[in-house]
Amino acid sequence: MRQLGIVGVGLMGGSLALAAREKKLFDSIVGCCKSRESSRAAIELNVIDRALSFDDLIADSDTIALAAPVETIVALIPKLVAAKSDAVFADLGSTKTAIVQAIPPAIRGRFVAAHPMCGTEYSGPKAAFGSLYDDRIVVLCDTEANDQGALETIQTLFSVIGMKIVKMRSQDHDRHAAFISHLPHAISYALANSVLRQEDKRSILTLAAGGFRDMSRLAKSSSAMWIDIFKQNKPAITAAINAFDDELKKAEKLLAGDDWDALERWMKSANALHAIFKAE
Amino acid sequence: MRQLGIVGVGLMGGSLALAAREKKLFDSIVGCCKSRESSRAAIELNVIDRALSFDDLIADSDTIALAAPVETIVALIPKLVAAKSDAVFADLGSTKTAIVQAIPPAIRGRFVAAHPMCGTEYSGPKAAFGSLYDDRIVVLCDTEANDQGALETIQTLFSVIGMKIVKMRSQDHDRHAAFISHLPHAISYALANSVLRQEDKRSILTLAAGGFRDMSRLAKSSSAMWIDIFKQNKPAITAAINAFDDELKKAEKLLAGDDWDALERWMKSANALHAIFKAE
Repeated sequence: MRQLGIVGVGLMGGSLALAAREKKLFDSIVGCCKSRESSRAAIELNVIDRALSFDDLIADSDTIALAAPVETIVALIPKLVAAKSDAVFADLGSTKTAIVQAIPPAIRGRFVAAHPMCGTEYSGPKAAFGSLYDDRIVVLCDTEANDQGALETIQTLFSVIGMKIVKMRSQDHDRHAAFISHLPHAISYALANSVLRQEDKRSILTLAAGGFRDMSRLAKSSSAMWIDIFKQNKPAITAAINAFDDELKKAEKLLAGDDWDALERWMKSANALHAIFKAE
Repeated sequence: MRQLGIVGVGLMGGSLALAAREKKLFDSIVGCCKSRESSRAAIELNVIDRALSFDDLIADSDTIALAAPVETIVALIPKLVAAKSDAVFADLGSTKTAIVQAIPPAIRGRFVAAHPMCGTEYSGPKAAFGSLYDDRIVVLCDTEANDQGALETIQTLFSVIGMKIVKMRSQDHDRHAAFISHLPHAISYALANSVLRQEDKRSILTLAAGGFRDMSRLAKSSSAMWIDIFKQNKPAITAAINAFDDELKKAEKLLAGDDWDALERWMKSANALHAIFKAE
């Protein structure tokens, strides 16, 4: 009997459970939750079959997915050596270098470092939904260190739930993710804080059209999850914030100098994203 | 026979035409377009009945909506004195102070300064759709200067197409809009430019999940439209960018100093937007 064990049954882990259940990939799906309340919700919502302690989950499961905040993942990885000798592992963390470095040599071949490029601003088992991974990309890092069999098992899991697989070095992943994922979160938190400081609730509700709602959506993301990402990817995130700062300063300078032609060119150059996403 | 004349048949003007047509509010709907190509598209898509020159549109129409970029609106307003003596006017511009100041005394009572709080990142007549205004807010500014009859005509037009009316002083509108609408555009342009400068197309497509797509959507907005808004609302936009800068600098400083508790509190304070939008 094959068992999927999920550590952290929130948006990511819970959605993995639901997608795997739908595809009948395992005989049973168990979870280790961060609280009794969370366990109860995950069982009631039929996300997992049973809630187990971390040690019991590790001892019993054949495929183990770590879907906790990334500092928790790093803390738990050494304990995976207690798992079955043929168990395979994957994490779903948003950073990869620190996680790869934390994998004990004894299980390095069987641990696939993964980052599914999807999510919402919500968290917890109630936020989980079975189609989260459908047609999205999962980045697998440093797979040259993986055993062929373990890599195939994890790749099959992601493929069957609808994901497209891309491989990348963990350092490259972290540098790209800093710009394309972590920076937007920093900006959204800063935008939300500056608007909340200046504007009252009524003005926000009156004037917030789709643009502001989109730009501030990420600012609702779990701080417990994101503080860990900022800790682990600090240098790359700092570099990304600096690069963004430079661009905003350029606009401020053109605005201050009434250099409208150059400011319009600056806006127009940003339009190039249009073509990139259109080409998909 | 009542005629609606729309100056600038793009996303905003074209959508107004479609919504008004659906509600059968006018006997005919005419438009003044920025190009022959645009006129042809607007007629073919059944957005307007006929394309007219600006002078002919002004001479013939009973209700006239200005839906051009805001510098064009300011340039055209003096010419509205040539309209019928009982014609009523509204503009749909994203700034209000400069537009209100440009209204000639002879038509001040009949000109309602309006900002519908909706839009998309697309422009031109093909971007227009009849439900754009449905259930959205329109801000009317400085209405104490309006004649009762003209104000009622314009309010009825907006109400019938599904809008909720909010009144505000034009200076207040511009200050709030700088934070809640114009700042997010500046940020999105800066994010798009910094990512395009650092990242290649392939990495962007691989790693861009919903968050980055949302945050960069506004960067696709028409530079021709937005450069005008930045010109007219420069002081308020500068203040908003500075306030945002302060927040981002705060985060950078906490990150540099490994002050994780304070950085997490900073993230958590942004979560407060959650509750504001949830209460709707």
